[in-house]
Amino acid sequence: MIAIMSHATSEERLQEIVRHIEKQGVTAHISRGTDRVVIGIIGKADPKLAEQLRQMSGVEEVIKISKSYKLASRDFHPDNTVIDIKGVKIGGGELVMMGGPCAVESPRQIDEIARLIKAAGGQVMRGGAFKPRTGPYSFQGIGVEGLEWMAEAGKKHGLLTITEVMTPEYVDICAQYTDILQIGTRNMQNFDLLRKLGTIDTPIMLKRGFSATYDELLNASEYILAGGNPNVMLCERGIRTFESYTRNTLDLNAVPVLHQLSHLPVIVDPSHGTGRRELVVPMSKAAVAAGADGLIIEVHTDPDNSMTGDGVQSLYPEQFAELLQDMEKLAPLLGRSFNTHKEPVSSASSK
Amino acid sequence: MIAIMSHATSEERLQEIVRHIEKQGVTAHISRGTDRVVIGIIGKADPKLAEQLRQMSGVEEVIKISKSYKLASRDFHPDNTVIDIKGVKIGGGELVMMGGPCAVESPRQIDEIARLIKAAGGQVMRGGAFKPRTGPYSFQGIGVEGLEWMAEAGKKHGLLTITEVMTPEYVDICAQYTDILQIGTRNMQNFDLLRKLGTIDTPIMLKRGFSATYDELLNASEYILAGGNPNVMLCERGIRTFESYTRNTLDLNAVPVLHQLSHLPVIVDPSHGTGRRELVVPMSKAAVAAGADGLIIEVHTDPDNSMTGDGVQSLYPEQFAELLQDMEKLAPLLGRSFNTHKEPVSSASSK
Amino acid sequence: MIAIMSHATSEERLQEIVRHIEKQGVTAHISRGTDRVVIGIIGKADPKLAEQLRQMSGVEEVIKISKSYKLASRDFHPDNTVIDIKGVKIGGGELVMMGGPCAVESPRQIDEIARLIKAAGGQVMRGGAFKPRTGPYSFQGIGVEGLEWMAEAGKKHGLLTITEVMTPEYVDICAQYTDILQIGTRNMQNFDLLRKLGTIDTPIMLKRGFSATYDELLNASEYILAGGNPNVMLCERGIRTFESYTRNTLDLNAVPVLHQLSHLPVIVDPSHGTGRRELVVPMSKAAVAAGADGLIIEVHTDPDNSMTGDGVQSLYPEQFAELLQDMEKLAPLLGRSFNTHKEPVSSASSK
Amino acid sequence: MIAIMSHATSEERLQEIVRHIEKQGVTAHISRGTDRVVIGIIGKADPKLAEQLRQMSGVEEVIKISKSYKLASRDFHPDNTVIDIKGVKIGGGELVMMGGPCAVESPRQIDEIARLIKAAGGQVMRGGAFKPRTGPYSFQGIGVEGLEWMAEAGKKHGLLTITEVMTPEYVDICAQYTDILQIGTRNMQNFDLLRKLGTIDTPIMLKRGFSATYDELLNASEYILAGGNPNVMLCERGIRTFESYTRNTLDLNAVPVLHQLSHLPVIVDPSHGTGRRELVVPMSKAAVAAGADGLIIEVHTDPDNSMTGDGVQSLYPEQFAELLQDMEKLAPLLGRSFNTHKEPVSSASSK
Repeated sequence: MIAIMSHATSEERLQEIVRHIEKQGVTAHISRGTDRVVIGIIGKADPKLAEQLRQMSGVEEVIKISKSYKLASRDFHPDNTVIDIKGVKIGGGELVMMGGPCAVESPRQIDEIARLIKAAGGQVMRGGAFKPRTGPYSFQGIGVEGLEWMAEAGKKHGLLTITEVMTPEYVDICAQYTDILQIGTRNMQNFDLLRKLGTIDTPIMLKRGFSATYDELLNASEYILAGGNPNVMLCERGIRTFESYTRNTLDLNAVPVLHQLSHLPVIVDPSHGTGRRELVVPMSKAAVAAGADGLIIEVHTDPDNSMTGDGVQSLYPEQFAELLQDMEKLAPLLGRSFNTHKEPVSSASSK
Repeated sequence: MIAIMSHATSEERLQEIVRHIEKQGVTAHISRGTDRVVIGIIGKADPKLAEQLRQMSGVEEVIKISKSYKLASRDFHPDNTVIDIKGVKIGGGELVMMGGPCAVESPRQIDEIARLIKAAGGQVMRGGAFKPRTGPYSFQGIGVEGLEWMAEAGKKHGLLTITEVMTPEYVDICAQYTDILQIGTRNMQNFDLLRKLGTIDTPIMLKRGFSATYDELLNASEYILAGGNPNVMLCERGIRTFESYTRNTLDLNAVPVLHQLSHLPVIVDPSHGTGRRELVVPMSKAAVAAGADGLIIEVHTDPDNSMTGDGVQSLYPEQFAELLQDMEKLAPLLGRSFNTHKEPVSSASSK
Repeated sequence: MIAIMSHATSEERLQEIVRHIEKQGVTAHISRGTDRVVIGIIGKADPKLAEQLRQMSGVEEVIKISKSYKLASRDFHPDNTVIDIKGVKIGGGELVMMGGPCAVESPRQIDEIARLIKAAGGQVMRGGAFKPRTGPYSFQGIGVEGLEWMAEAGKKHGLLTITEVMTPEYVDICAQYTDILQIGTRNMQNFDLLRKLGTIDTPIMLKRGFSATYDELLNASEYILAGGNPNVMLCERGIRTFESYTRNTLDLNAVPVLHQLSHLPVIVDPSHGTGRRELVVPMSKAAVAAGADGLIIEVHTDPDNSMTGDGVQSLYPEQFAELLQDMEKLAPLLGRSFNTHKEPVSSASSK
Repeated sequence: MIAIMSHATSEERLQEIVRHIEKQGVTAHISRGTDRVVIGIIGKADPKLAEQLRQMSGVEEVIKISKSYKLASRDFHPDNTVIDIKGVKIGGGELVMMGGPCAVESPRQIDEIARLIKAAGGQVMRGGAFKPRTGPYSFQGIGVEGLEWMAEAGKKHGLLTITEVMTPEYVDICAQYTDILQIGTRNMQNFDLLRKLGTIDTPIMLKRGFSATYDELLNASEYILAGGNPNVMLCERGIRTFESYTRNTLDLNAVPVLHQLSHLPVIVDPSHGTGRRELVVPMSKAAVAAGADGLIIEVHTDPDNSMTGDGVQSLYPEQFAELLQDMEKLAPLLGRSFNTHKEPVSSASSK
């Protein structure tokens, strides 16, 4: 930690500040520049010290040097985390393609979509049983029954499953039926939920808050890792900016940045990241070119009649299949592998 | 709802779209402009219809005209909501001043700060017993014991109390000890929590998400109102922008805008809205000049040693007292009343 | 300047970097923390050094400590700049009220509005003769003739005048007719224009770019100051954020922040900062409460027929007059003076 | 254009508004919904009408339906614009790779970099002779001499050249020496400059303002097109968001969106769009995968000693060469062609 003194701080005030710092059991190291004096604080300081210094007269700015997350940092874990779920390896160089509807609507719907996702070469089926909705009068999801339908369809067609969990009390039941738990953008800093996720070992896909910095995303992942669950993947799904033509601005810079700062796998969601079906295919390819370990894409057999109204960003199954065929050719040129004709995952969703 | 057709949509496609609309039991009304054709949809359409239209070929844009919230809207409730809590009236022209520490730290601390808030002329004491923290290694709050200390200090000194509640399961216990429940910026769209708040009648102060639009804030309040709790006040606490010198950008435009769109009281939090103590006093005055019904301000007797590190934005008690004296003179010129020497609130915190 | 080394930098690499730094004639000062090593660079470094260090392997981050502006900084000029224009003093505690139409439309229009601005108690009349327009098919302004009409009206009614100048070649003619030159939000970083403004001594009102940070605004003012023109006032006029209900988000935090960082006067433009007439009055009061030295407000006698279409944010003359009467009462409580019945400015606009 | 009436507008007021509209020579078409009444305005309305309506009592919102740009719109020009510069075709399916230093520094430097860009397979050399700098004390560029050096190096090595022009008076001299003129992010709305560019026929690369919407970018291009210069390409170079880890947020959504809205070629600048060398290669590939017609990349032979300090985002020449080899393999899979061993452009830079 570094404290930068104001231009006109007296020597006496400087010494007072140094004494305050050293009372905390850390060392203060003074550097005198031409315009300003800087104090370096050496040792493991109480997090409060930064804030205390910030408000002491004579201190202009305090800069923290150590990152606030450790377990998520590549500094302390140089090798990539590879999450192996029933033989599907996420983060290890093989592209993982997840597809499915925004919401589970009926057993027939989910069986049909599972068949198509599998036929296209996907490894994971997404589907929401509980839906976060910005207005109270919208469709709020099918509930636990939807989890059962998904589990069944996943098992039958040899697909892993992923679903969103929104509250701590639903974590266990979702984890019982589903292979991966998704934390949505509005819950990235739902700290009670994050703490609960740290107590299980089901893999978690943590979506970036639509206004969260990289640092905040990594701190949120730290909650789960610190609780004891090492199986975390990060997901870029678009941020909120001044541009309103697209639903969000998909920030693909996040992909190489997160890979640099962290060892966790990075998934991209081009459906929410654009909000428009006609942008999903080009942005899917862009995400993989930027280095994504996988994609999560909304696919619907009848988007005109989707229950959530998110159909506008859903691919038709044929589009998803065609995209995966293109990926099969692109992946090797981008240092990853992908094969649409692989054998069914061994015992997927056989929980 | 209005659907704008693409430049080159054929008459045949137009008629197909009209038939699709009318199958939903609403009326389609065609207006032919020079460049484009527009369809007006008349009647109460299923919310899905907008999204369906958006993805039909030939439709360029769909614009919803009715607001998605009703109970929060001034259109349907022209008079101001006035929330009366033990004689303190919020939203009725009398300024309400809330002050206190970020976190409850000890019974002695909270008693001392209550005495000072009361002496300064404040009506409500704030204090956090549970703290949302972006990193897992920070101080997370005292817990239920802190609620008891606050209730006691409030009762002794004749102050109402406000505290943040973060999860549905803590709503009842917080409501038992506290007069107003605060929903923090990261929980504005925690829909389970909002639904729970709709089932009680304790007044709620709903903070705007740091990246939430006015419309999203009003929709979030609609969740609580629709559940049956009419006692909601809105709180502007700063939004996230490209400017990082201040912790947030306090958006005071929100005050007159929310008053125009809604009948709910509007409180401003200049402490989080600036993040810097030296900006709190001028921005407090600005907030009241913009029309705020009240302020919530961090005040700490020993900010250098605050447990949360938020001391940097806390006023010293003397500053708070001086601000309230200034408010007493300013308020009448701004169409509101404020009196630092009022009688103690009748039975405040006597729950 | 401070360079923070990566976690795993070798001692050898550290010494190489130190040698590179010291070759530039400055001193490198090593501080060893528990996790990381930090190098303080002492002496006046070439601006390139920061960037060089940023890309050297082993360097994680480089932080500049000295501000990049000097003349605009309060560090080096503790007293407020007061700009005296024919007896109207800006920045010295007296509120300055500027009003007038977006665009000069006719001699009759500008004479009438000048009469009303003066009668209301305003000191400065605004009016645009050249208009920056985002689309090429919009009204582009009357031109030099408009400057003459304004000068005449200002002289007749005893008002100072302010107009926007958009290109270096028009600076001299605008300065010949007008008392204050306004630089618009899209030209804040038009460096050729800024350099030209440094060569004259006409007072300049420099508007913050709608996406410029405080630091960038102060650096832009530094261009003018460094050229030799000390008569610069800053203007907050709203920034672009994710919120689109208002035309811009008026950032009133800017007022106390700019006063803290700089000695230059700070003006606020609530017309562009909100884009909606009904918000202009409350936000004008808020701006003065936040500490503004003056306001610039759009006023139009017939806003429904304004040539630029900016009428939607223009006050009616009666609203402007009423606002100034309120200001007369508010100003003394906010540490400033304002008097609507002052004598005409001595020889205003008698150029 | 559509005007949405307030909830409680009387029939009488509605008829007044209709009469006001019809006085302008256009037709008003009333649609009565359940909650609200909407007026469709049919015919070519004066642009002022929208603003007039916006401020009439009873009108809640006015929505423009026609786009404000025509010449840039794909609606009126369905085929891609292909700009042919001495045999290099931009926008026609062949990738165009532009590389070179931020600033021209010496004849030797620019000759050496031209040799390397050519050897790598690039078709265009970039280089700045005039530099826009946010602070007045930074290096401001070499000037006209730099243009001569670039032209010579381009001619010798068979490369097109591109340089930034910042003011109308330099347009002619820059166009004399250079094949493509670049308009920088801070000048996207420098309307005098745009008008001047409309009077020549030199191809223009118009960079998106760092806070400009797609609509504003297309309106800016309309200025040039409307002036008579059809040779415009658009450039996405990153936008300003709340995320400050990267210099800008590269908005690749812009690529498919601009291709959909417009027929103009779209170039991407991953150097400014990230600000960090290690992100340039992955984001270059992502940009091409998203559909970019070309890239403009900073390349420097000795980035540690670059004069502008932008070295931190410059590729080493070897990295550029390797990237272009990868592009040669990727391009065909992404529907474009690219060949690093093509013949020299016929008479490139032989002006």
